[in-house]
Amino acid sequence: MSSPETFHGWLGHDSTSAAGNLTWSSFSPKPFNPTDIEIKVICCGICGSDIHTLRSGWGATHYPICVGHEIVGHVTRVGSSASSTHKIGDRVGVGAQVLSCLESDCDECSNGQHSYCAKGFVGTYNGQYKDSGYWSMGGYADYVRVPAAFAIKIPDGLKSEDAAPMMCGGITVYAPLVHNGAGPGKTVGIVGLGGLGHFGVLFAKALGCDKVVAISRRRNKEEDARAMGATEYIATSEDDKWATKHSRTIDLIISTVSAPDIPLSGYLRLLKTNGQFIQVGAPEDKLPAIMAFALIAKGCKIGGSQIGSPKEIEEMLKFAAEKGVKPWVQKVPMKQANKAVVEMEQGKARYRFVLENEEAQARL
Amino acid sequence: MSSPETFHGWLGHDSTSAAGNLTWSSFSPKPFNPTDIEIKVICCGICGSDIHTLRSGWGATHYPICVGHEIVGHVTRVGSSASSTHKIGDRVGVGAQVLSCLESDCDECSNGQHSYCAKGFVGTYNGQYKDSGYWSMGGYADYVRVPAAFAIKIPDGLKSEDAAPMMCGGITVYAPLVHNGAGPGKTVGIVGLGGLGHFGVLFAKALGCDKVVAISRRRNKEEDARAMGATEYIATSEDDKWATKHSRTIDLIISTVSAPDIPLSGYLRLLKTNGQFIQVGAPEDKLPAIMAFALIAKGCKIGGSQIGSPKEIEEMLKFAAEKGVKPWVQKVPMKQANKAVVEMEQGKARYRFVLENEEAQARL
Repeated sequence: MSSPETFHGWLGHDSTSAAGNLTWSSFSPKPFNPTDIEIKVICCGICGSDIHTLRSGWGATHYPICVGHEIVGHVTRVGSSASSTHKIGDRVGVGAQVLSCLESDCDECSNGQHSYCAKGFVGTYNGQYKDSGYWSMGGYADYVRVPAAFAIKIPDGLKSEDAAPMMCGGITVYAPLVHNGAGPGKTVGIVGLGGLGHFGVLFAKALGCDKVVAISRRRNKEEDARAMGATEYIATSEDDKWATKHSRTIDLIISTVSAPDIPLSGYLRLLKTNGQFIQVGAPEDKLPAIMAFALIAKGCKIGGSQIGSPKEIEEMLKFAAEKGVKPWVQKVPMKQANKAVVEMEQGKARYRFVLENEEAQARL
Repeated sequence: MSSPETFHGWLGHDSTSAAGNLTWSSFSPKPFNPTDIEIKVICCGICGSDIHTLRSGWGATHYPICVGHEIVGHVTRVGSSASSTHKIGDRVGVGAQVLSCLESDCDECSNGQHSYCAKGFVGTYNGQYKDSGYWSMGGYADYVRVPAAFAIKIPDGLKSEDAAPMMCGGITVYAPLVHNGAGPGKTVGIVGLGGLGHFGVLFAKALGCDKVVAISRRRNKEEDARAMGATEYIATSEDDKWATKHSRTIDLIISTVSAPDIPLSGYLRLLKTNGQFIQVGAPEDKLPAIMAFALIAKGCKIGGSQIGSPKEIEEMLKFAAEKGVKPWVQKVPMKQANKAVVEMEQGKARYRFVLENEEAQARL
């Protein structure tokens, strides 16, 4: 296959770009290193991070930008240093991170915690490569170039459109579930039933948790949640005294919402002794202040978790293939990216939009 | 020894009582149950909780009250159901808790987490016994009566005045240190150098942590902190850019301060990846609000911890005796309780006042 000198993608040019203002434009790819591979994009999920970044919600974004970090595609070019791990034609996925320092003296990289590398983390978009100064460009595009170490083989048992949103949305909830003991004997709560939250319910169920409690503002997603595997449903805006009624029932809560005005003290009431509340959605403002007593009286913890390492992503994909974890995705032609981004922001995804390059798909 | 029908202690009568208004008065002890023991108080530490409670800072206090939950004394009476564990003349300590439900179907009591028992926690003072309705009275007194299960034998190697403040101040920091991996290879930070904080430094050192970082507002306690075992000292009100300078250096921080206006975001910057910040001081107001990113970007956690179980207290006392952990206490005659409480509130303790019943002490 040939390697194009110019890529094409949906570019955002300013903070209004999430409002339907992306333009399909050409751009120069990153300089190709021996450690890189090039991927022809089959599909790319639409993640909430894309929208936060397009509108500079998490700090100033470097425009023009091509977002998208739930990428699945076929390898079309392999750098000389990547030939032992990747081959042309391989189907691979790329998540929210494309590089870390990978140094042996890095506590994080040497302990399988690449997503916390403080020295060399480069995001899949809006990140800057130190060597070239190039600002990374994501997967709302025809091609991407990325360091091979962060492109993970997709097991044959997973469809591309199902694997794509796992690369960020999936791993973001899978990693804290596994790290904090989700499994048989445990009750897990998932706050927010969007793209991440629906993965939370699916994975908590697949991990064998005794109970999976879906927690949403309204009751309108109950049927879906139960179909995904939820055994309980709490609607915080509609259920009277929900925090009291369900007090001390949950071992681990994963909060996927990125609104800052969450009823955090209520969520903490739901936790059992030594329970943990892990925030993975990243609000643009501060979390609500809480009383220290809420943590002290039950020995509880509030934590955060950021995506996962390449190895964890590989484990998740294998687990998903083995357990038949099937996300609820809606395929959208890549040419309708603007419409899909707007509808995503309006909360219309049920539960993940995946942009599809029809040409790439047809090639299969 | 005889068992008096009336006890005497320093009683607080309203929310001004911490301002030097305790009165030495008689009061009726709790009805003596077969599971109880009676203790002639040798000494009792002055804990910050005493003051919070005397002024109704943590909610309405039941007056009149006798505070004090760092008690060491000699057993003077043993209930028929407690005779297998306790004998007259035993030297025992009582901490901040005197009862939990102790039921086999209680998740907490059956898993050695009595301090989190939701069904039957009774505090050593200002707690109400379900059977009699009696409001518990603490150790600024000549005698206390408590359920035997929460009176722990003091190892011979520990002096009474050293063991007393361990019963609350000590265990409050010892338990989260041990539960969160303090030991060789770890760097531990202790926020606040009061009674609890000084135990934090002493125990972190005794546990073999590589580095022990004392964190205080001002530099005036540095010499003391280093004498206790601190290897580093951060003065947050005096050191320029302390959070940046010491960023990502600490595995575990135990925060012992009970002021709500702590520089929490700065403390979180000090944590390494997957670091933990455990709050044990309980401010009367909310903790500062933080950005979720502060937790997410490093996979950090903020938690709380509440005293420890009888078994953990026993382990701590044994550990302290073996390692020669020697708290810095200032003995004060019981008759000077008012003065000592006022000076404690003024921050004058270096680092724990221990009220001493001279008569009881002489009897040794």
